[in-house]
Amino acid sequence: MSKEVKPESMSLHSLGGRAGEATLEQEPVCIFGTGDLGRSLGQRLLQTDYKVVYGSRRPHTCGSLPRGAQVLSHADAAQLASLVFVCIHREHYGFMETLASQLEGKVLVDVSNNPEKNLYPEANAAYLQKLLPGCQVVKGFNTLSAWALQNGPSDASRQVYLCGNSAEAKQAVAEVVTKMGLTVLDRGSLSAARELEDIPLQLFPEWRLPLQIALCLTAFFFFYLLIRDVIYAYVIQGKDISFRIMVSLANKVFPIVSLIMLSLCYLPGVIAAFLQLYRGTKYRRFPDWLDRWMLCRKQLGLLALAFAFLHVLYTLIIPIRYYVRFRISDSIVTQIRENQTSKFDTTIAWRSDSYYSVGILGFGLYVLLGITSLPSVSNALSWREFSFIQSKLGHLTLLLCTLHTYLYGWDKFLRPSMYKWHTPEGYMVSLVVPTVVLVLKLLLLLPCVDRNITRIRRGWERAAPDEDKTLLM
Amino acid sequence: MSKEVKPESMSLHSLGGRAGEATLEQEPVCIFGTGDLGRSLGQRLLQTDYKVVYGSRRPHTCGSLPRGAQVLSHADAAQLASLVFVCIHREHYGFMETLASQLEGKVLVDVSNNPEKNLYPEANAAYLQKLLPGCQVVKGFNTLSAWALQNGPSDASRQVYLCGNSAEAKQAVAEVVTKMGLTVLDRGSLSAARELEDIPLQLFPEWRLPLQIALCLTAFFFFYLLIRDVIYAYVIQGKDISFRIMVSLANKVFPIVSLIMLSLCYLPGVIAAFLQLYRGTKYRRFPDWLDRWMLCRKQLGLLALAFAFLHVLYTLIIPIRYYVRFRISDSIVTQIRENQTSKFDTTIAWRSDSYYSVGILGFGLYVLLGITSLPSVSNALSWREFSFIQSKLGHLTLLLCTLHTYLYGWDKFLRPSMYKWHTPEGYMVSLVVPTVVLVLKLLLLLPCVDRNITRIRRGWERAAPDEDKTLLM
Amino acid sequence: MSKEVKPESMSLHSLGGRAGEATLEQEPVCIFGTGDLGRSLGQRLLQTDYKVVYGSRRPHTCGSLPRGAQVLSHADAAQLASLVFVCIHREHYGFMETLASQLEGKVLVDVSNNPEKNLYPEANAAYLQKLLPGCQVVKGFNTLSAWALQNGPSDASRQVYLCGNSAEAKQAVAEVVTKMGLTVLDRGSLSAARELEDIPLQLFPEWRLPLQIALCLTAFFFFYLLIRDVIYAYVIQGKDISFRIMVSLANKVFPIVSLIMLSLCYLPGVIAAFLQLYRGTKYRRFPDWLDRWMLCRKQLGLLALAFAFLHVLYTLIIPIRYYVRFRISDSIVTQIRENQTSKFDTTIAWRSDSYYSVGILGFGLYVLLGITSLPSVSNALSWREFSFIQSKLGHLTLLLCTLHTYLYGWDKFLRPSMYKWHTPEGYMVSLVVPTVVLVLKLLLLLPCVDRNITRIRRGWERAAPDEDKTLLM
Repeated sequence: MSKEVKPESMSLHSLGGRAGEATLEQEPVCIFGTGDLGRSLGQRLLQTDYKVVYGSRRPHTCGSLPRGAQVLSHADAAQLASLVFVCIHREHYGFMETLASQLEGKVLVDVSNNPEKNLYPEANAAYLQKLLPGCQVVKGFNTLSAWALQNGPSDASRQVYLCGNSAEAKQAVAEVVTKMGLTVLDRGSLSAARELEDIPLQLFPEWRLPLQIALCLTAFFFFYLLIRDVIYAYVIQGKDISFRIMVSLANKVFPIVSLIMLSLCYLPGVIAAFLQLYRGTKYRRFPDWLDRWMLCRKQLGLLALAFAFLHVLYTLIIPIRYYVRFRISDSIVTQIRENQTSKFDTTIAWRSDSYYSVGILGFGLYVLLGITSLPSVSNALSWREFSFIQSKLGHLTLLLCTLHTYLYGWDKFLRPSMYKWHTPEGYMVSLVVPTVVLVLKLLLLLPCVDRNITRIRRGWERAAPDEDKTLLM
Repeated sequence: MSKEVKPESMSLHSLGGRAGEATLEQEPVCIFGTGDLGRSLGQRLLQTDYKVVYGSRRPHTCGSLPRGAQVLSHADAAQLASLVFVCIHREHYGFMETLASQLEGKVLVDVSNNPEKNLYPEANAAYLQKLLPGCQVVKGFNTLSAWALQNGPSDASRQVYLCGNSAEAKQAVAEVVTKMGLTVLDRGSLSAARELEDIPLQLFPEWRLPLQIALCLTAFFFFYLLIRDVIYAYVIQGKDISFRIMVSLANKVFPIVSLIMLSLCYLPGVIAAFLQLYRGTKYRRFPDWLDRWMLCRKQLGLLALAFAFLHVLYTLIIPIRYYVRFRISDSIVTQIRENQTSKFDTTIAWRSDSYYSVGILGFGLYVLLGITSLPSVSNALSWREFSFIQSKLGHLTLLLCTLHTYLYGWDKFLRPSMYKWHTPEGYMVSLVVPTVVLVLKLLLLLPCVDRNITRIRRGWERAAPDEDKTLLM
Repeated sequence: MSKEVKPESMSLHSLGGRAGEATLEQEPVCIFGTGDLGRSLGQRLLQTDYKVVYGSRRPHTCGSLPRGAQVLSHADAAQLASLVFVCIHREHYGFMETLASQLEGKVLVDVSNNPEKNLYPEANAAYLQKLLPGCQVVKGFNTLSAWALQNGPSDASRQVYLCGNSAEAKQAVAEVVTKMGLTVLDRGSLSAARELEDIPLQLFPEWRLPLQIALCLTAFFFFYLLIRDVIYAYVIQGKDISFRIMVSLANKVFPIVSLIMLSLCYLPGVIAAFLQLYRGTKYRRFPDWLDRWMLCRKQLGLLALAFAFLHVLYTLIIPIRYYVRFRISDSIVTQIRENQTSKFDTTIAWRSDSYYSVGILGFGLYVLLGITSLPSVSNALSWREFSFIQSKLGHLTLLLCTLHTYLYGWDKFLRPSMYKWHTPEGYMVSLVVPTVVLVLKLLLLLPCVDRNITRIRRGWERAAPDEDKTLLM
């Protein structure tokens, strides 16, 4: 966080003197490479009151550079600064070996990115360190957009990830980052460079699987319901109700997918518990598919919440739809013309109100789960609090949402007329997985099973030696 | 943030050399204790490319340990590393006194937790430091779940709280934390250890009081309205309208509780201001009950928001309820059969639309208040901005919500038929506290009162000596 | 992060010994000034187990100070501590010059704030450093409220911004901050002091322009629609429909403003792209107005979301409004009395359902955009992910919302009766900007244009020298 790591200025402070004036005699920062990134970076450094000197192969013909910057040959530029930003493509790193003596002891900041993953055996920064073992290589800045570099911190991330083997080198770079108004996140030694170089290439990797599941489920249920509702009506009854696709059908597909996704979010935890019970230990790794499944539970849950949110909106606009208004008015007119009387049915009132009430409470809890998975909120929770919300309240949410769906079905499960073309309604299909999850979870809550699983999770093993038990934690 | 703090590797860098190779000669990390936590931690350290050596009482018979770890006696293991993780229950710490000479100068990381609060006079880490004064004890890792330790950062917190008296020791531990992909939060000296040891035991301590208030209010108003609405109708009119419990009653209880909680959130601030006015100084502590009340204002407000959210949803589903549809259709049918004509009443239209509009604006502001109390948002606000939103906009929200309720009542306050069994309607009761808060707040905004309170909050005291006034800030 | 930076305690640790006892012999912290801030700070430091000594001009008559603090003359107090908090107004700094010898080498923490911006030529902290060049001045604590200082971290920010030229001095202050349970944010050298001193004075500076735009648009469309709807009906038809102001009018103004604001949020990006295309380079600065516009895109978008949120609520309460219920029941009664029959129109059903469906999907994406602009969420995104959401999904949102409005208009665009007093409906006006943005964006997506703009954004210049091309990044 300080420029004291540079030998020149260090002496100043160890003499205890004149901290206020140290900035005046600041040594310049060197940038190798006059491409886009080099220019953007230089422009920003100049704005932050750094002196900038570019190292270029042809210092006299290298095009327009930010005003105020000096351009020299690589060797001369390196000599002037103790901090060198390497803004060059990895395939041109080779020439720097010839500068080994001029660069000896300097801090090199590798800001490079690759066009795709796994192009090279080692990270660019590690390769640079190998080429120049006498330098202290720090990886960083590569996760920032050129826009952020050129214009200072924008709405996107202000965070600059750094890694490197030398703490002093990282401090020196951190000082520059801080002065630029950005925030440093130290990610440890240079072995993390590969990870940092992969960040700019990734596009929601952990969302891919959950999104695919959501898409498949949505497509499947869309066509399933299209056939059962719209096409059935057309084929059997000769009615064109295709307009129902836009709202009625959507409002069947969304809650179905939401409920299934929510239960898929709690299924792996239940499977894992049974696996641990069966194996009698928690120290054996889960199969890969289960591991991967468990790692995307948060994403599954958030997508389920998004679908539930759409379901709520689609439900709430029902009474202002033209179709619904027409049908209501039509039924009243019919009732009067044919002189029918309808009687109020308390059971239906109970069922319909319970159905809505349970749904609303379930959605309320759902939103709460969503809020607590915001990074800043979950960081503020202790682990016990987080697991209370995500596990206890999560299963309660699943219970309420499943109940909501059962109340929707009510007595229709047994009515044969509901099984058009011998297929069950969509919501009946959607109840299978959540019911299984809830039953398995109930089994796990039985005192005898619960006792076993708790023991195992505290480190007990069914056939383990128990000499060291007194040291068990 | 670097292993340079360990004397061995420090020399390397002060020679300015070969930072890139330092990791190769890394000394191992030692773990005392082969219980659950010791194993999880060791497994994770091995995955992060650390060498791990366990210290055990019976090194040859201590069960299955992570592959790649070495097991030695405590004394031998300690000798190999400068960093020792103590994964042992506090009651077994005693034996380490015999290792004092081997542990001299080493960094001990106390990761222990207690089964409950206040079990021991001092924190575990402080006790360990007292036992081994020659060591540098750092408290940490205890707030992570075993799951997080074993599997690396998960959705829950990545934050590792550290405290200790030696900055170098903390740096050494911080380096390990960073390499594991976790984030360090330095909490100062070892005196903070007690606080860190209490974190894993807490379950929403600051939410307890607000939740109790919410529950009591909900229960009270539920039974109050149950008696006035459902039981009254059954006893006096002989009608069974019990189905109204699910939605109609809930949609009365939720807004009532929400409004009262919101006003309870602003009441202590008003009381505090009057207390300061009365005392003529801001330097005397508030009574304990007021202090505790003020500290849970945020939680009160968020719970109020949750109830308001439910109220909104319960209101919006009104038109799709069976009961409502039945009643509307019934009234139209009756109107036609009995040949009545209804006339449009502009006053009712004004009242009903104002009622909804004020409610929506109030809820909008409410949501804004909720969003600004998210940790990451409130951190981005300056204090002036935060207090503008929470105080100015907060009181405006209370005003709008109170107005919404008054508009709901409208002319019913004076209709005797509304006072069944001589009790007022629920919403009338709910208006008492917010009205009081708003009137008191208005008094505080009177110029003469406002001037006084502002002076006091800037440090002025009614009977204070004023010699140092020129230095007042 | 450690007190080791103070010479006295440093020796202790370099001897490697007794870290556990270092706290006992802690030297006191000195506070200059016994005003409000000095007292609050002292009280908090005493609670954090620091010894506190006040420096005062009249140590024997300076009023009530926190219990446990010592009061001495400035010179004597300064001698006892190596860390001095300067809680004095800037205009009284002068006297400290006479203490230059006692303060030599000490760390001075400038916590002062000014009543308004640009009152003095340089920052208070810079001025203090100039007065006392032998001291190490650190700016900090000034962004905290007195409440936070007195009572410890509250709901508002726990973050303490620090800046200063000496890294050791900042470390020493950081240690105190950490012990107080607050979090340090290092903002670099003392040149950042001015910025820190401006923070407490600012009140949403970046929201001002967007808020003004929103207010102007709201006011304009309110009066425009008031005249076209309410006043037109009164003047031409003699009907008083003023009650429609509360909901119907509001529910026209809000979506109009929301759509225009959303398109204003994407317009500058499109303009910038065309400007870059025209200039053939990305290295020339945008005109100032464009720069300022681009910097408030996030705020424009969030305000647009707030208006959209209100629009959704206003739409959803439509069916429970008295006016709507009256009209529906009235139309049914009329239909029966006059023996009309209405026929179900599939086209209207398609249009109305599509209109709602597209609106809901647009709002869903809108909310997603809002969530990803929460600081903690956008920090967790890589730049590629952030720009994918804000650009791709953002334009999709704009497309859906514009389509929603076109579907609302449907065939009314060509009906002359819609153009009361020869003015178009409000929503027709609101469609102009989004249509322009979408058309321009479509142009930019044409392969030939897209190729050019991509080249330019990678640093290519139309007439640039290309010698250094091999080094381009």
